[in-house]
Amino acid sequence: MSFRIEKDTMGEVKVPSHKYWGAQTERSRNNFKIGPSASMPLDIVYGFAYLKKAAAYTNHDLGVLSKEKRDMISAVCDEILEGKHNDQFPLVIWQTGSGTQSNMNVNEVVANRAHEMAGNKIGEGEKTIQANDDVNKSQSSNDTFPTGMHIAAYKKIAEVTIPGVIQLRDTFHKKAQEFKNVVKIGRTHLMDATPLTLGQEFSGYVSQLDHGLKALKNTLPHLSELALGGTAVGTGLNTPDGYDVLVAQYIAKFTGLPFITAENKFEALAAHDAIVESHGALKQLSVALNKIANDVRMMASGPRSGIGEIIIPANEPGSSIMPGKVNPTQCEALTMVCAQVMGNDVAITVGGTQGHYELNVFKPMMAANILQSAELLGHACISFDENCATGIEPNHAVIKQLLNNSLMLVTALNTKIGYYKAAEIANTAHKNGTTLKEEAINLGYVTAEDYDDWVKPEDMVGSMK
Amino acid sequence: MSFRIEKDTMGEVKVPSHKYWGAQTERSRNNFKIGPSASMPLDIVYGFAYLKKAAAYTNHDLGVLSKEKRDMISAVCDEILEGKHNDQFPLVIWQTGSGTQSNMNVNEVVANRAHEMAGNKIGEGEKTIQANDDVNKSQSSNDTFPTGMHIAAYKKIAEVTIPGVIQLRDTFHKKAQEFKNVVKIGRTHLMDATPLTLGQEFSGYVSQLDHGLKALKNTLPHLSELALGGTAVGTGLNTPDGYDVLVAQYIAKFTGLPFITAENKFEALAAHDAIVESHGALKQLSVALNKIANDVRMMASGPRSGIGEIIIPANEPGSSIMPGKVNPTQCEALTMVCAQVMGNDVAITVGGTQGHYELNVFKPMMAANILQSAELLGHACISFDENCATGIEPNHAVIKQLLNNSLMLVTALNTKIGYYKAAEIANTAHKNGTTLKEEAINLGYVTAEDYDDWVKPEDMVGSMK
Amino acid sequence: MSFRIEKDTMGEVKVPSHKYWGAQTERSRNNFKIGPSASMPLDIVYGFAYLKKAAAYTNHDLGVLSKEKRDMISAVCDEILEGKHNDQFPLVIWQTGSGTQSNMNVNEVVANRAHEMAGNKIGEGEKTIQANDDVNKSQSSNDTFPTGMHIAAYKKIAEVTIPGVIQLRDTFHKKAQEFKNVVKIGRTHLMDATPLTLGQEFSGYVSQLDHGLKALKNTLPHLSELALGGTAVGTGLNTPDGYDVLVAQYIAKFTGLPFITAENKFEALAAHDAIVESHGALKQLSVALNKIANDVRMMASGPRSGIGEIIIPANEPGSSIMPGKVNPTQCEALTMVCAQVMGNDVAITVGGTQGHYELNVFKPMMAANILQSAELLGHACISFDENCATGIEPNHAVIKQLLNNSLMLVTALNTKIGYYKAAEIANTAHKNGTTLKEEAINLGYVTAEDYDDWVKPEDMVGSMK
Amino acid sequence: MSFRIEKDTMGEVKVPSHKYWGAQTERSRNNFKIGPSASMPLDIVYGFAYLKKAAAYTNHDLGVLSKEKRDMISAVCDEILEGKHNDQFPLVIWQTGSGTQSNMNVNEVVANRAHEMAGNKIGEGEKTIQANDDVNKSQSSNDTFPTGMHIAAYKKIAEVTIPGVIQLRDTFHKKAQEFKNVVKIGRTHLMDATPLTLGQEFSGYVSQLDHGLKALKNTLPHLSELALGGTAVGTGLNTPDGYDVLVAQYIAKFTGLPFITAENKFEALAAHDAIVESHGALKQLSVALNKIANDVRMMASGPRSGIGEIIIPANEPGSSIMPGKVNPTQCEALTMVCAQVMGNDVAITVGGTQGHYELNVFKPMMAANILQSAELLGHACISFDENCATGIEPNHAVIKQLLNNSLMLVTALNTKIGYYKAAEIANTAHKNGTTLKEEAINLGYVTAEDYDDWVKPEDMVGSMK
Repeated sequence: MSFRIEKDTMGEVKVPSHKYWGAQTERSRNNFKIGPSASMPLDIVYGFAYLKKAAAYTNHDLGVLSKEKRDMISAVCDEILEGKHNDQFPLVIWQTGSGTQSNMNVNEVVANRAHEMAGNKIGEGEKTIQANDDVNKSQSSNDTFPTGMHIAAYKKIAEVTIPGVIQLRDTFHKKAQEFKNVVKIGRTHLMDATPLTLGQEFSGYVSQLDHGLKALKNTLPHLSELALGGTAVGTGLNTPDGYDVLVAQYIAKFTGLPFITAENKFEALAAHDAIVESHGALKQLSVALNKIANDVRMMASGPRSGIGEIIIPANEPGSSIMPGKVNPTQCEALTMVCAQVMGNDVAITVGGTQGHYELNVFKPMMAANILQSAELLGHACISFDENCATGIEPNHAVIKQLLNNSLMLVTALNTKIGYYKAAEIANTAHKNGTTLKEEAINLGYVTAEDYDDWVKPEDMVGSMK
Repeated sequence: MSFRIEKDTMGEVKVPSHKYWGAQTERSRNNFKIGPSASMPLDIVYGFAYLKKAAAYTNHDLGVLSKEKRDMISAVCDEILEGKHNDQFPLVIWQTGSGTQSNMNVNEVVANRAHEMAGNKIGEGEKTIQANDDVNKSQSSNDTFPTGMHIAAYKKIAEVTIPGVIQLRDTFHKKAQEFKNVVKIGRTHLMDATPLTLGQEFSGYVSQLDHGLKALKNTLPHLSELALGGTAVGTGLNTPDGYDVLVAQYIAKFTGLPFITAENKFEALAAHDAIVESHGALKQLSVALNKIANDVRMMASGPRSGIGEIIIPANEPGSSIMPGKVNPTQCEALTMVCAQVMGNDVAITVGGTQGHYELNVFKPMMAANILQSAELLGHACISFDENCATGIEPNHAVIKQLLNNSLMLVTALNTKIGYYKAAEIANTAHKNGTTLKEEAINLGYVTAEDYDDWVKPEDMVGSMK
Repeated sequence: MSFRIEKDTMGEVKVPSHKYWGAQTERSRNNFKIGPSASMPLDIVYGFAYLKKAAAYTNHDLGVLSKEKRDMISAVCDEILEGKHNDQFPLVIWQTGSGTQSNMNVNEVVANRAHEMAGNKIGEGEKTIQANDDVNKSQSSNDTFPTGMHIAAYKKIAEVTIPGVIQLRDTFHKKAQEFKNVVKIGRTHLMDATPLTLGQEFSGYVSQLDHGLKALKNTLPHLSELALGGTAVGTGLNTPDGYDVLVAQYIAKFTGLPFITAENKFEALAAHDAIVESHGALKQLSVALNKIANDVRMMASGPRSGIGEIIIPANEPGSSIMPGKVNPTQCEALTMVCAQVMGNDVAITVGGTQGHYELNVFKPMMAANILQSAELLGHACISFDENCATGIEPNHAVIKQLLNNSLMLVTALNTKIGYYKAAEIANTAHKNGTTLKEEAINLGYVTAEDYDDWVKPEDMVGSMK
Repeated sequence: MSFRIEKDTMGEVKVPSHKYWGAQTERSRNNFKIGPSASMPLDIVYGFAYLKKAAAYTNHDLGVLSKEKRDMISAVCDEILEGKHNDQFPLVIWQTGSGTQSNMNVNEVVANRAHEMAGNKIGEGEKTIQANDDVNKSQSSNDTFPTGMHIAAYKKIAEVTIPGVIQLRDTFHKKAQEFKNVVKIGRTHLMDATPLTLGQEFSGYVSQLDHGLKALKNTLPHLSELALGGTAVGTGLNTPDGYDVLVAQYIAKFTGLPFITAENKFEALAAHDAIVESHGALKQLSVALNKIANDVRMMASGPRSGIGEIIIPANEPGSSIMPGKVNPTQCEALTMVCAQVMGNDVAITVGGTQGHYELNVFKPMMAANILQSAELLGHACISFDENCATGIEPNHAVIKQLLNNSLMLVTALNTKIGYYKAAEIANTAHKNGTTLKEEAINLGYVTAEDYDDWVKPEDMVGSMK
């Protein structure tokens, strides 16, 4: 490999000659060999690209950056956002806790690529654009990284998580309507209980997801607050008047999302409660999805020796010889994702607690975790929806058999023949392993006709909301 | 001890003769000897008292309970709410996961106490009120326990947590105003950085608590949804028409809190995402408070060999001989509470994930954890406020000394004498262990007068929002 | 209430006249009104009683305490250990993070009670024993509290947790033997799989608990290390030569447990990794127990519409009218305990991470959590054992039916008639909802006799280890 | 892209023609689009390569596989272990919870590559080796995946985590020796306390890491137990006699690690308490490392307005103008890793609790988390060691100044001039902001010579163990 020499305030560093990054990125590469390389999520890089472009526009509007420099910075940022420079960001999550070097990585790439776009060769000639003085103008790592992570997290939640959850929620809603007359046995404590409809069960899932979506959306205003303009400690030192409000407007414009400047920059640098808050809602969704996926796999269990009330799509061979062994693999993938999100929540909580004075230095870790959770939940909902939920069908024969076998229907006889005779019927059926109907008739308390008239599970399920 | 005989469907049980509880409570006492007795929070019992009274009123209004019974039930519930029967609820958290026996405990106590109030002796004569048929009318454990826990949790958050956090927030706000001109050194990565005011630091705490309060309040609508009316599986079997809406109105009236009937009763029984959601916000507050308390103790550290920028009240002897050893004991209590809340969040998460079919059976554990977190946070904020925050004072001498010693102020000379001379001054001062001012003069770059004119930390702190 | 005046270095305090505690305890009562009063576990107080007695003996042996004082201190400690003074320890967990005031509470109670035992009236006359100079001699809060919490946690684990887990483990082992010939359907992904015996399933539970017990025991050597002798910062300032080793020997003697002095006192004060380590093993046990309890309730589900392979004892009425609704209430209590332990693990982890310099100040919180987990797990195992596990019986009819219905047995025909014919039989049975045997005969591939000869589930279960 | 047609029991699938994988891998790729592709750790693939080779040897030894097939399977496994086929494993973590398709991915790659090595073209001609019948012989996904994950986790812990922790521990040990005479102020509650040596502080870190290493090693016997030989449900159906013991011996031989066959295969498939156990120890190490890194950064804080007792290496520019701003970036990376490990512990715990019957289906998630934690901890220790710990030096001037300024040294005068005079000296110095020595002389209680003779901090630090 060939190298060029780059410099920073500590001296010279050898950098691979075909890379846009500079001295500080290279130092970080060498100083933090922790886990796989380039683990810093590209979404963060893209967040930076939006903010560098917005800062350039704002700096120009406020008279501290030339139009030429603004346009060059903007052009490189656009290239980054098109994914053209994905291989220029080699740093890891486990670096400086303020993400300083990822900020510098972007600054360096923008500056060197702009130099090249201006017809020069990297490392040669007067720098067209300065990484620090131009690209990073009116900024500090301390306000750029939290801004980048808010942009990335908000976008991921808005573009991946919420649509994914909604798609699954809509399928459950459709199923709830389809199954609204499928009366089945209810179960509490895993034990047989009074009946309800399969549609009612699915309506509970819809309600969980609706509440989860509402909870998630409640957190977005906090996440929409951007630290940019606080610079090093929150005071906004070295920013032109009006910078913070305007730069947030540009970011809102470029991303199409309702970002605003943080009402308190000291909070925005020193604490990341907004990440804690949004991830708390992701965790709530994982709790809901875990419950739902668990119900689905229990209801689909069998084919012969389980519950077997619903049939889920067969997507992979479950057994080379046994037909009907349709493993609930989507439920498994989804519940694994849920467990991961629950773990990530603790990582974020621990990171959130340990801010010191003017700066929380668990930023990259917190950013990586919320991005992973938001993406996995969104993807897993789509996968679960398309490969499982949409294909769920009732196994009417099993549902009917389990319902009619149930002793819980005896409650319907209470008001007709009195509690004691009803209980006697149930006890006899339980002892003999027979049905209520058989014993009701055998004991002479009810005729077959009356039984069918009186014991109607469909009358026991109320009206579905 | 003397006993009387009580019966349930499983047969006879010996119950202490002076206790109002009956057979099912006694069975539970014997079957669940796990941890200290009577660990089920009384707040849950009070939640039940509200709902039993509300159910009696609703049942009467809807024509299924006599006025006499309504008034007797109501009278006992009022006694319970006055704390007169606190020793009648001996059950533990670690019982049936639906809390069935705590529901029965209330039913039995109400029935037996009503019997006594009607002039009878417990265990003798025709029962004036039936625990199941009257007190529990139109109810099931499965909908009463989640209702009781929502009432208890909402009340605790509204009456203890929120006022506690607000009291502390208001003190920080007052301090932020008081300290708005106290310029001090900023710190990032725990290292010296550009200055800000002590008031700005405190404004960050205010912002954290404001955001935390907003997040907590966002969760209350979900928590205000009551399961009552869903009965055993959510279908509302055995409830009169309109019961669910009306009973929630009565509960709202009796508690003075905006409870409504849950829009989906299947969700309300089978999932407790509302508890997960509200506790997530409590956890966020614990993250914020941990950060704040940590800052306070670091800034108060010393008296000689620490940071020592603020002085906190001395509430206990810190050392028998050393003056000024004022241990940050309120910070310690508060951060221990925060750690507990973070732990409780995982317990609640784990419980929330494992609902099965129509019923989540981690109810008492989830209820106990949210009640503990809500209470501890509220109390700890009050304790921290009254015994620490209100008494915080700047140590002006130390603040000034640390500020003036700082090399970070050199940035103010940049624009006056150029970057390179400024850096030379800083480097020389760093090497010699001297101040910037001394070296600026020594090096002949700046006069004393100019230095004082140019290096004004108060000009570097921006305007406090 | 009447009061007496007590003094400490900060001045006078009014203390209830009938209480043994003094000024520092009273200050703490007033300064930390967080959660229920007296929440500091009595087990910690007892741990202190052992160590105060051991310190008195050691101080006497090493010539710094008179025999008279030693015996007086020892006598009060014995009374405390007999539970005679349980109402003298009013402090809460949420106090100074070093537990200083609980140390002082014990010192004050011992001194005042000794004064009284010597025939004096509390608060009058020359003090017979000084709380600081005598009871606390050669000690500091900083080394006593961690010593007290190690004693308490070790005792609880040794006396409650381990015996509880072993009792349940032994029952499962007995059941594994009893059920070793009960062949049943296996289930993977909740779906029907090849058979195994019920005894094999239970042997898996035994193995989990055996591994869990081993893991827990592996942590005890760390927990047996005592901080006592480190005094304020770990250097052992103000302790006589040989004190640390001897005092640990006395504690070992008095408790009957293998305590030793910590090899490094700086670690023993500043970090509580021993608590983290032991609680990690408790958490592992909770993971194991959750799995087991979950299996038990799924296998016991029904009675008609669930799995129903085992029958568990009916301890409470499950339904007022439906026979056979035996709710798995012990499983529910146990899994709630498991969730709590998982939460406590995070609280302990968070507390453990935040030690600063020479002292970790999350001690009372960490102590309370490990004591709760250790006790709840022990109790819950006993409760589960006595009220559930010992009474578990196979439902042979259901087990046989589910086994014989299964299509998975077709694998046994593979080697007899070839894969394709076997698969055809399975597919036909699956399609028609019939048994393998029926279709094997219908298709003419196997005679009834051959089928019975060839398809023997008991030949498919291997040999049980 | 060109495709070939592969088949499984569900029919035909189009597979990229240049890839070795087959139908089942391709189905999984399409069915689980969750998160980045190929997220299944390669370490798991390598674990599979060891076990497939060992299975081939065992199957041959026991007479069920030809020597030719054994050698072909073995040759491909060796290629996989050399990293030649890293691009052949495209599947994600979030798939079937038993990892079935990753097992099939390996089977398919081995079979097709062997076919190619035998001179054939993939997808053409009679298959030289069957993925199921040969490569997977005497195996099931259910026992291979847990085997693969035990191999991978054990190797990672043995080869990355433990050496990394030891390297850092050894540096701290060396520093503890070097600094054994550097007397400094102690700090408890973050407040000044009696002195100790910097070496003693570092010895505490050594002790934490020693205990952590011991805890981790204690877990390895459980992790060394391999599920292989249990096949589908733990009974070992379809394995030759002696297979389980022999295959573990081969794995031990090939890996050079002490693997043995699991004593109970039912536990080994249905529960992953071994992963929970080992990860618990990793979490304990993260607790220890977090404490240590936190201490280091607090002690290194400054350069002017912090504690400043130690100097850490400057690896990156901390500020463009301010000298001495050496950010504790390695501490930040390390503590972020610690927070991640704490989160991963909860993910693993949650996964571990939810095994059902004969199979835990959170395997890939649990495997991925323990591998990440083990690797990050090992790498972070090396990075912290090489870029920070080895370069730590005392700032003797600051240490001496903070020590001599301290009022805590007054305790040394107690025994010379009595408690009251000593306290008066301390109080006066505290009030006047002077040193003890000054006031001791001013008050006329001690001469300068006596003061220097009597107040020797080095006599207050005990003997370092």
